[in-house]
Amino acid sequence: MKTESLALALVECADRRGIIAAASGWLAAVDANIVQADEYAGVDGQFFMRLAFSFDGTRHNFSSLEAGLTAVIGGGSARPGSVRVYDAHTKPAMGVLVSRADHCLVELLYRQRAGELPVSIPFVAGNHPDLAPVVESYGIPFYHVPVTKDTKPQAEARLLELAQGQTDFLVLARYMQIVSGDFITRYGREIINIHHSFLPSFAGADPYRQAWERGVKVIGATAHYVTEQLDEGPIIEQVVERVSHRDDVETLKRKGKSLERQALYHAILAHAERRVIRYCNKTIVFA
Amino acid sequence: MKTESLALALVECADRRGIIAAASGWLAAVDANIVQADEYAGVDGQFFMRLAFSFDGTRHNFSSLEAGLTAVIGGGSARPGSVRVYDAHTKPAMGVLVSRADHCLVELLYRQRAGELPVSIPFVAGNHPDLAPVVESYGIPFYHVPVTKDTKPQAEARLLELAQGQTDFLVLARYMQIVSGDFITRYGREIINIHHSFLPSFAGADPYRQAWERGVKVIGATAHYVTEQLDEGPIIEQVVERVSHRDDVETLKRKGKSLERQALYHAILAHAERRVIRYCNKTIVFA
Amino acid sequence: MKTESLALALVECADRRGIIAAASGWLAAVDANIVQADEYAGVDGQFFMRLAFSFDGTRHNFSSLEAGLTAVIGGGSARPGSVRVYDAHTKPAMGVLVSRADHCLVELLYRQRAGELPVSIPFVAGNHPDLAPVVESYGIPFYHVPVTKDTKPQAEARLLELAQGQTDFLVLARYMQIVSGDFITRYGREIINIHHSFLPSFAGADPYRQAWERGVKVIGATAHYVTEQLDEGPIIEQVVERVSHRDDVETLKRKGKSLERQALYHAILAHAERRVIRYCNKTIVFA
Amino acid sequence: MKTESLALALVECADRRGIIAAASGWLAAVDANIVQADEYAGVDGQFFMRLAFSFDGTRHNFSSLEAGLTAVIGGGSARPGSVRVYDAHTKPAMGVLVSRADHCLVELLYRQRAGELPVSIPFVAGNHPDLAPVVESYGIPFYHVPVTKDTKPQAEARLLELAQGQTDFLVLARYMQIVSGDFITRYGREIINIHHSFLPSFAGADPYRQAWERGVKVIGATAHYVTEQLDEGPIIEQVVERVSHRDDVETLKRKGKSLERQALYHAILAHAERRVIRYCNKTIVFA
Repeated sequence: MKTESLALALVECADRRGIIAAASGWLAAVDANIVQADEYAGVDGQFFMRLAFSFDGTRHNFSSLEAGLTAVIGGGSARPGSVRVYDAHTKPAMGVLVSRADHCLVELLYRQRAGELPVSIPFVAGNHPDLAPVVESYGIPFYHVPVTKDTKPQAEARLLELAQGQTDFLVLARYMQIVSGDFITRYGREIINIHHSFLPSFAGADPYRQAWERGVKVIGATAHYVTEQLDEGPIIEQVVERVSHRDDVETLKRKGKSLERQALYHAILAHAERRVIRYCNKTIVFA
Repeated sequence: MKTESLALALVECADRRGIIAAASGWLAAVDANIVQADEYAGVDGQFFMRLAFSFDGTRHNFSSLEAGLTAVIGGGSARPGSVRVYDAHTKPAMGVLVSRADHCLVELLYRQRAGELPVSIPFVAGNHPDLAPVVESYGIPFYHVPVTKDTKPQAEARLLELAQGQTDFLVLARYMQIVSGDFITRYGREIINIHHSFLPSFAGADPYRQAWERGVKVIGATAHYVTEQLDEGPIIEQVVERVSHRDDVETLKRKGKSLERQALYHAILAHAERRVIRYCNKTIVFA
Repeated sequence: MKTESLALALVECADRRGIIAAASGWLAAVDANIVQADEYAGVDGQFFMRLAFSFDGTRHNFSSLEAGLTAVIGGGSARPGSVRVYDAHTKPAMGVLVSRADHCLVELLYRQRAGELPVSIPFVAGNHPDLAPVVESYGIPFYHVPVTKDTKPQAEARLLELAQGQTDFLVLARYMQIVSGDFITRYGREIINIHHSFLPSFAGADPYRQAWERGVKVIGATAHYVTEQLDEGPIIEQVVERVSHRDDVETLKRKGKSLERQALYHAILAHAERRVIRYCNKTIVFA
Repeated sequence: MKTESLALALVECADRRGIIAAASGWLAAVDANIVQADEYAGVDGQFFMRLAFSFDGTRHNFSSLEAGLTAVIGGGSARPGSVRVYDAHTKPAMGVLVSRADHCLVELLYRQRAGELPVSIPFVAGNHPDLAPVVESYGIPFYHVPVTKDTKPQAEARLLELAQGQTDFLVLARYMQIVSGDFITRYGREIINIHHSFLPSFAGADPYRQAWERGVKVIGATAHYVTEQLDEGPIIEQVVERVSHRDDVETLKRKGKSLERQALYHAILAHAERRVIRYCNKTIVFA
């Protein structure tokens, strides 16, 4: 009896002659069937590939395939490259950190329940208790983890404890706290943030006021991976909308909330579908 | 001495296990190097691929590679598929048919001269003589081929004579004549048309008036391959813009002209860069 | 003691010399202060105006101002025109009809609770009971009013009974039933529908499948006032998004749901803010 | 015999009760007929208005109307406000400064000839001679005014001499020189510049390279009035487009050129149609 499994592989390595042939040949040799392939070779000689392939789950498993592909990709290269193979049918677990604003949170909760966001949500944590009811109405645990200047290390330790055991990545859904470099390092997985401006314009505080003061005719929102440099991590998605002189700071905020919801959703969707590769403070986002 | 050539291959065939491995393996075996690859497998089991690969021009040529890839792709299949291999450094020759409106024509002439449209333009032909000066100011021959109800067969014969010898495809840049099925068949290559509406809305005459009467809030323009069914050929590109109650038919026309220029340009760019495959009255347009 | 009230006036009449002067002069004479004014004169000689003005609520009321403005606007004209004066601080009551799909409903419930949609929602009614829990979680009554071919008159009578007493307008938030001309007439107020295509393209059933079959490169959603002619009422808002050959009917549906949410929300926002005037199967939507 | 003239008035003043009534009443009293009116009251209490009105050219002229409206608007106010009345049928004269890049220039020349840009173009001046042929092919004088570090004062004197006598405003159509504060002051009219980024992101040199290095997913172009602070003048128009990891600096430049053409065109169109009022380093752009 044969059981078809479906894998998603993300490959990054130095570009070289025959690399697609090597990878696809090896997969053919183990009787795997590529159902989708996307490649991109950067201007600096780096090669990126996303493969979706089916295989006989009784003969192979995801880690053996990852090991095999890694050997094929890295063969003879000083830089062995990176190969990750995921089970396409296993939804990654997404922890969510929030503060008081609910617009991004509700978008994610709704999308997840509607089957439009292939993740599980083991918990939501907030530095304020305000959003507990909406989270719990979706049947998801909510943890109140207050943060003050003095208790930040303890708060981060608590968040880390929650996150490490049960999440594959974290989302800051308008979490109004800066996470420390130490937290980022110890968590060791991806953290996605939504910034309420069209970065790099208006980094920092109160971007809609900054935008209004500058008199821009287009506003935006930016979803990016979190790094120690605030608002400077690799951008995953940006969404924009025209505005006019009629908009004041309040209407910019209202319009911006829609953009934030869209940008964050699309960034997480791409991440959860294993379509994003980080490289040199940028992202490759396959279609 | 070795000379690197660069090929673009467009492949279409029934999907099957190992097809990427077969193609990339064969290319590796002839020492060709894939520099870009895009694949798409349709829901109906059809497979599409665009490859850019370099090879040693002293050992292989484009037609031998096309023959070789065709054998690999078609091997053992009842439906042999289609493989076209193009020289990436040879710009396709584009004939242009116009009438009196110059906006699409000027966009194409300018883009071609600016190096933003990789085609050559052996001639422009018009059923009115009005646009001869602008064409000739670009150093391109202009032919006046008037069309009346009675002389349409002769006019098409003349256009065919011009086109067959020196063009790889034709563009109808607001050419206000319907080309006959006979012309399409005898020409036998691609013809791209720009329709001044967001098809399938407002097919037929005076689409901006139709759009105004319906009170739509968004207008568009559509570039498509020409088939015998007027306005129903495979769509390559659509461009849209918001409008409002303030727009009358005249401002819709002015705004629409910008959309027509953009849609036609992007469609031709994709076609000229060998990024488009027609299939079942649709198009696959690789990024 | 003086109490400032804020009025919104929507004016429509035959255009004539001095009409703005007459209206603004009359308002100045009654000591009202115009805080915003938008005018539009159509190509057919019709004049449209939206005014926001404050006035002393101890000396005037909304209906006396409506009567006064009507006299000023209609003075000496065979066609007296239409003047409606609304209390800017009174949110219109919006009844919502749904079926099984929840995406538009949740958008409206969320936006209303978040203060981003100035309406009250006295009830939601569904021809299926599925959405009762989500409605009730927002503290809003849900009525299950099943509809079969045989019971449609009774069902519409029940809906009419619900709607007439407590709503200023109705929204069909993916309500999969056709409302009868009789219902529209007897209700006598506005009904807003969301159609899941970029009308007039793909009117009728299963528009995403139609869009996929036609191979369009842009999809859309259309919010419009309901008339007896299905899918042909005055368009209030259209929202569009680029798609590609990679999209199948399922991803078009998922992307389309986002467009439906946006188009319906923006249409209702404009309607609730008294920014829309219907005229000749079109709409004037002030910014 | 009566001759209808058409005026465009731009009004800016401190907001106060009855201002629309005063202006429209005065126009009615002199038998002028308002055909279009747009108002905007800013959050800081400033009032802006654009009026289009017809009047009897045998009884009034543009400067008497400007004086009359100024008295009405300023009556009794410590801040008299600003009123400009233009002849709607007189196209403003636009001088153009260029360097070597021709994309913006050709867009403007084409649009002007096509009747899509209501300006006259008395001359184009370039610090390089390269674009003389294209300018002269449109029948417009071209002046070569080279600029070096040492000759900048003389060059600006020459440009000023050209501009002062025959232009109403200037456009820097990718003119790669910084104009001095002295030049701006002495010219004393509007200067419009196109910056090849979505300001305030990527001000300064080589913005497409900056955008590529930051890995943004949307690029833009910004048309703004020139002030002494480089790239910080009031923004008139911004146009944006999605890009991806596939774009390198070259394709960003190519895509950006299209955005620059669009942003500059729309900004000049708004300016030439007297739809723009500058205020506090921002712009009010009426629709």
